[in-house]
Amino acid sequence: MVKISIIGAGSASFSLNLIRDLCLTESLRGSTVSFMDVNEERLEVAYTLARRYAAEVKVDLELQKTMSREESLEDADFVLNAALVGGHGNEEVQRKTGEKHGYYRGVDLGRHRQLRFFLDVARDMENLCPDAWLIQCANPVFEGCTLLTRESKIKVVGLCHGHYGALEIARVLGINPEHVTFQAPGFNHCIWMTDFLYKGENAYPLIDEWIETKAEGYWKTWKPEYHQTQMSPAAVDMYKMFGLFPIGDTARGGGWWYHQDLRTKQRWYGPLGGFDSEIGWSRYLDSLSKHTDDMLRVARDPSTSVTKQFPPVKSREQHIPLIDTLVNDKEGIFQLNIPNNGAIKGIPDDVVVEIPGVANRRRIQGVHVAALPERLMLHVMIPRMLRMEWSLEAFLTGDKRILLHMLLEDHRTRSLEQAEGLIEDFLSLPFNRDMAEHYG
Amino acid sequence: MVKISIIGAGSASFSLNLIRDLCLTESLRGSTVSFMDVNEERLEVAYTLARRYAAEVKVDLELQKTMSREESLEDADFVLNAALVGGHGNEEVQRKTGEKHGYYRGVDLGRHRQLRFFLDVARDMENLCPDAWLIQCANPVFEGCTLLTRESKIKVVGLCHGHYGALEIARVLGINPEHVTFQAPGFNHCIWMTDFLYKGENAYPLIDEWIETKAEGYWKTWKPEYHQTQMSPAAVDMYKMFGLFPIGDTARGGGWWYHQDLRTKQRWYGPLGGFDSEIGWSRYLDSLSKHTDDMLRVARDPSTSVTKQFPPVKSREQHIPLIDTLVNDKEGIFQLNIPNNGAIKGIPDDVVVEIPGVANRRRIQGVHVAALPERLMLHVMIPRMLRMEWSLEAFLTGDKRILLHMLLEDHRTRSLEQAEGLIEDFLSLPFNRDMAEHYG
Repeated sequence: MVKISIIGAGSASFSLNLIRDLCLTESLRGSTVSFMDVNEERLEVAYTLARRYAAEVKVDLELQKTMSREESLEDADFVLNAALVGGHGNEEVQRKTGEKHGYYRGVDLGRHRQLRFFLDVARDMENLCPDAWLIQCANPVFEGCTLLTRESKIKVVGLCHGHYGALEIARVLGINPEHVTFQAPGFNHCIWMTDFLYKGENAYPLIDEWIETKAEGYWKTWKPEYHQTQMSPAAVDMYKMFGLFPIGDTARGGGWWYHQDLRTKQRWYGPLGGFDSEIGWSRYLDSLSKHTDDMLRVARDPSTSVTKQFPPVKSREQHIPLIDTLVNDKEGIFQLNIPNNGAIKGIPDDVVVEIPGVANRRRIQGVHVAALPERLMLHVMIPRMLRMEWSLEAFLTGDKRILLHMLLEDHRTRSLEQAEGLIEDFLSLPFNRDMAEHYG
Repeated sequence: MVKISIIGAGSASFSLNLIRDLCLTESLRGSTVSFMDVNEERLEVAYTLARRYAAEVKVDLELQKTMSREESLEDADFVLNAALVGGHGNEEVQRKTGEKHGYYRGVDLGRHRQLRFFLDVARDMENLCPDAWLIQCANPVFEGCTLLTRESKIKVVGLCHGHYGALEIARVLGINPEHVTFQAPGFNHCIWMTDFLYKGENAYPLIDEWIETKAEGYWKTWKPEYHQTQMSPAAVDMYKMFGLFPIGDTARGGGWWYHQDLRTKQRWYGPLGGFDSEIGWSRYLDSLSKHTDDMLRVARDPSTSVTKQFPPVKSREQHIPLIDTLVNDKEGIFQLNIPNNGAIKGIPDDVVVEIPGVANRRRIQGVHVAALPERLMLHVMIPRMLRMEWSLEAFLTGDKRILLHMLLEDHRTRSLEQAEGLIEDFLSLPFNRDMAEHYG
């Protein structure tokens, strides 16, 4: 059977979800799963829980754990890269550095360490498991997958679950998500619903009616969780501006004018200010650490049932179904991040897009989707693509002027000196030493 | 012989330059030139001076004047559109409106009236002189020519003289411009010197040496005229950032960080703050009005010699040489604004670029130029092209949301309300009534 390597397996919730889906997939019984992480304690917890889980549901899986990436990758058939180098701690330090220079909630300076790491994994795979599929789960998926498909010979596909936001729309509209079909192509975290059908009929008019008659009332008493941005005023505003509804994480983004400060974020995303405000994000980090604590508690007490904590119900994640399809030739349709190759009109072939794709044992093929509205292309997609290209250009050339230019194009930058000052401070962070050398 | 119609002929300096070049071009003797303007007084001055000029140099030209565009276009072989609708007065009112809302030196909201006017002239030509060439001289040349080549069947070519900035570089370097050849492709007012040869050898090293050893000293005692921005610190900074030297009006543009306020402009463009500062621009307007006064004085005094004011020496403008080439099949190379059709790699075919072009009696053909550096494409050309597309999209759809989005993308916009407020005020200006109806 197949060997699946999970890089960053110390994320117990990610790994356990995966193991649960795997245990529920009969055709993948007997697989080997190699948990790899650089954090020994987190790795141990995830591994222990996964083993106990498989034992409780009486599924035959060969589970391994290792802190050696090479060992985990060796002869793998599938590599899932789910790691965030340096973890959220470093990200928060970078964010604070940004705020010190006047950038509320920090800046994106190309995510050098993540891209470096993605490419290192792919390079290792070229040696250790050249025929394996790399399933890219860690962000940035858009930049990462475009980089990897251009720079490496490894087969790469990026997965996300943001497109299920379309079902949240159905829920709010009060229609049964089971009768909904949709398409939402674009770039990862920048996808737009071209088709929204309820029982086979165009259901966009239901959205329009909801906006017309119910949205204001809905928002009046709205108490969204931090991750609930799908039906926010921001999402509706983007729909009005660009003609298609933004799906999933797309609604978290949008123009700078939704994100200037907490008050603005609250206007567009409700009381918490959405996922990415100081309130929303700290709730997210709290939920992560609560989850980690729960995991640790269960791991330390062999008498507790893991299945009780994680009832054996399939998740909606696509990882295991996609692997099952690629291994067992069950033709299936997925939401995939793969090179465009003409699927979305007006996007170059070598840019990774998020589109429906057909997978089978032989290959993954993108579906040629409806053309996106010209307005969306001109005002959102091409500018977003340019920012991706700037990141890759900076990463590949090591030219600091590109970092500077990226930051000058940030709407919040008020002067050349401000941008230069931030870059220096950012590169002086101890954990950014490699990046500093790269741009030295 | 040919009939040349000049729309906006009341600009006496433009018209007289043209007449002078025409008188010095033997192969176009006997041509008819129709002066058209909506300002009767300015038209009369330009016409009077042109007639006297031709008489003084004893050249046989048929000069006509009219306030009817139809009459002027009828059976024309060449139409030169040099008009600024509403003149500089309206532009200044718009600028003040921008400044009232916090936009230093005003905003570009797509130049609706100019584009409307350009298209109206082309539509008239389709009826009155369908085989004529439209030589587009008035700004915005980039937006205007792209619009016209897409929306009209008329043959269109845009002309500018900004590329001669390359010779100013030679002058400052102390090399003889007569031995300099260069290429500077791009978009109008956004052209970049790919080739710079002195006596057939690459002369870029001379620029590098000048920057290394002389620039600082040069700028210390530098007292540039308002239009002298070619060797400014801004131009050198752009060269360092993007790898090619910006030519002509290109140096006036560049990132927002050169243009934040007068002090910043002075840092990058010298004591006057460059062409577009409040000082530089008022000097420009003063020089225009002084010139108009001079013209008026000469026009009113039949005893003065016009040739004394305008010695019969050929200008460097391309209008008459291009007409001569198209009429008399003298194959020649010009700097032209024409659809790309593959000339610059990475730019769509239907976007008008400024490139060297070969003209003869049968047609105008673009020269396939060197690819521009990736960095220049990603950070300058594609963003500039997007802004052009936004302008045309706004103009063609009449959708106010696009104006709003254009303004939100202006780096100076601080809030949604600020942008909305400016648009309302801008559309309330009496002379923008047509525009307001278009976006109503």
